[in-house]
Amino acid sequence: MTYVHGYSERETRRLYEQADILEDILHTGTAYPAGARVLEAGCGVGGQTRLLVKRSPDALFTCVDISEKSLATARQLKAQAGFRQVSFHREDIHRLGFADQSFDHIFVCFVLEHLDDPVGALVGLKRVLAPGGTITAIEGDHGSCFWHPETPASLAAWNGLIHAQRNFGHDPNIGRRLTPLLTEAGYDVQRCQPAWLYADRLKPALRDGMVDHIIVPMVQSAEPRILRDHLVAEDVFEQGIHDLSRVDVVDEGTFFYTWFKAVAMKRQG
Amino acid sequence: MTYVHGYSERETRRLYEQADILEDILHTGTAYPAGARVLEAGCGVGGQTRLLVKRSPDALFTCVDISEKSLATARQLKAQAGFRQVSFHREDIHRLGFADQSFDHIFVCFVLEHLDDPVGALVGLKRVLAPGGTITAIEGDHGSCFWHPETPASLAAWNGLIHAQRNFGHDPNIGRRLTPLLTEAGYDVQRCQPAWLYADRLKPALRDGMVDHIIVPMVQSAEPRILRDHLVAEDVFEQGIHDLSRVDVVDEGTFFYTWFKAVAMKRQG
Repeated sequence: MTYVHGYSERETRRLYEQADILEDILHTGTAYPAGARVLEAGCGVGGQTRLLVKRSPDALFTCVDISEKSLATARQLKAQAGFRQVSFHREDIHRLGFADQSFDHIFVCFVLEHLDDPVGALVGLKRVLAPGGTITAIEGDHGSCFWHPETPASLAAWNGLIHAQRNFGHDPNIGRRLTPLLTEAGYDVQRCQPAWLYADRLKPALRDGMVDHIIVPMVQSAEPRILRDHLVAEDVFEQGIHDLSRVDVVDEGTFFYTWFKAVAMKRQG
Repeated sequence: MTYVHGYSERETRRLYEQADILEDILHTGTAYPAGARVLEAGCGVGGQTRLLVKRSPDALFTCVDISEKSLATARQLKAQAGFRQVSFHREDIHRLGFADQSFDHIFVCFVLEHLDDPVGALVGLKRVLAPGGTITAIEGDHGSCFWHPETPASLAAWNGLIHAQRNFGHDPNIGRRLTPLLTEAGYDVQRCQPAWLYADRLKPALRDGMVDHIIVPMVQSAEPRILRDHLVAEDVFEQGIHDLSRVDVVDEGTFFYTWFKAVAMKRQG
């Protein structure tokens, strides 16, 4: 897997901070019973794993990722936090090594957007899921994002990220496609809803978190790709980062983004 | 006021259907006590007026608009529906004829996006509002809108509407600016939240309502302006309308839009 945001320490920090800032928005309603065997597919550095364990302390988590570097970070986190019922394994989501029906539930968050073949991955995940079990999928949609004040440079920098990810053959606007992708992969979609964040001067901490700790570092992490692919001129990119950062500084700044969260079931029999 | 969607019978029907489809999304939480004097500024053909009266049957509504033609339609609606405590008056929202502090509450919906000077209008509305009274403002944000499948022609037709409205000097993406505009006009903003609609194959009636009864006729209503201003070539526009309509036809179609709803108070003293 090619990850548009790279594997730097800054990116690891962003992923942990992002998970905390968005915990209520994304994890509300997700809890697994004691003893449930849950596969977290594409766990990365374990940003979401911490929250899964916190909210389902007696479930049994098997967390897989393609990146050994990310898994090493996740294992450090496990050691520091003292997680018990979590194991980390290197697996390719497109060729999972687990036996059929190994898991009661599956959780995937911010993963399908980075895959060459999201439907193929979902079909493979269905194989290892027990009939009647659920998959919970959470994905952003970069086409949902807007802010005020909007400047040409801030738009250009943001669209640079979108195009860099598309140049990998991946879909940064995949949130809107969760229901059709899960349907195509043969699941029964039970619900799919926006999980949105809107922040203005009335919610300064949330605005600061979203703009300064998620969006700006996310766009910056893709800078090497954006400049290498000549998607945005370097001076425009720098101005765009400056303008995006200002959304959190000026009194009139506002920011909106929505993720989508779907729960789908593998049919019985 | 120049209204990008025009004053046709089809547009009147769209406004009534739109109001019904979006009633729960937009009107939940808005109710006025018996005897409250409420100004609806920019009532148009009375699409929202019906819902205001239904939800606050004992409030006293004064509804104003700049268009005599729209007011005539609204008065027919009043006669047919047997509204009692509603009166319709021709007023320019930028130069209201009412005495200071004439109203306990103000309601504006889908109006600021069509004005040359939204802050000036909000300041004028504040003059006729009693101290401690509230203004409820609801506005869409066309920049929030996305769908699947997204085609170049459907994007071009949609962006044609946005640019036609901007060519009037109006802001079709004003939803994201509600908090800063109300703040600039001197109100205390109490809350401002997205009021979103997302529909896919799991909600076919809502998807049909949003795509076929709101969005497609809304873009079509602006066709004369879009073509006159050469914003989109005619064949591309027709293809775009076709492609937008298909979102409601194909199994994989999804649609998202968000309005913003703010409640702000005029300070005491």
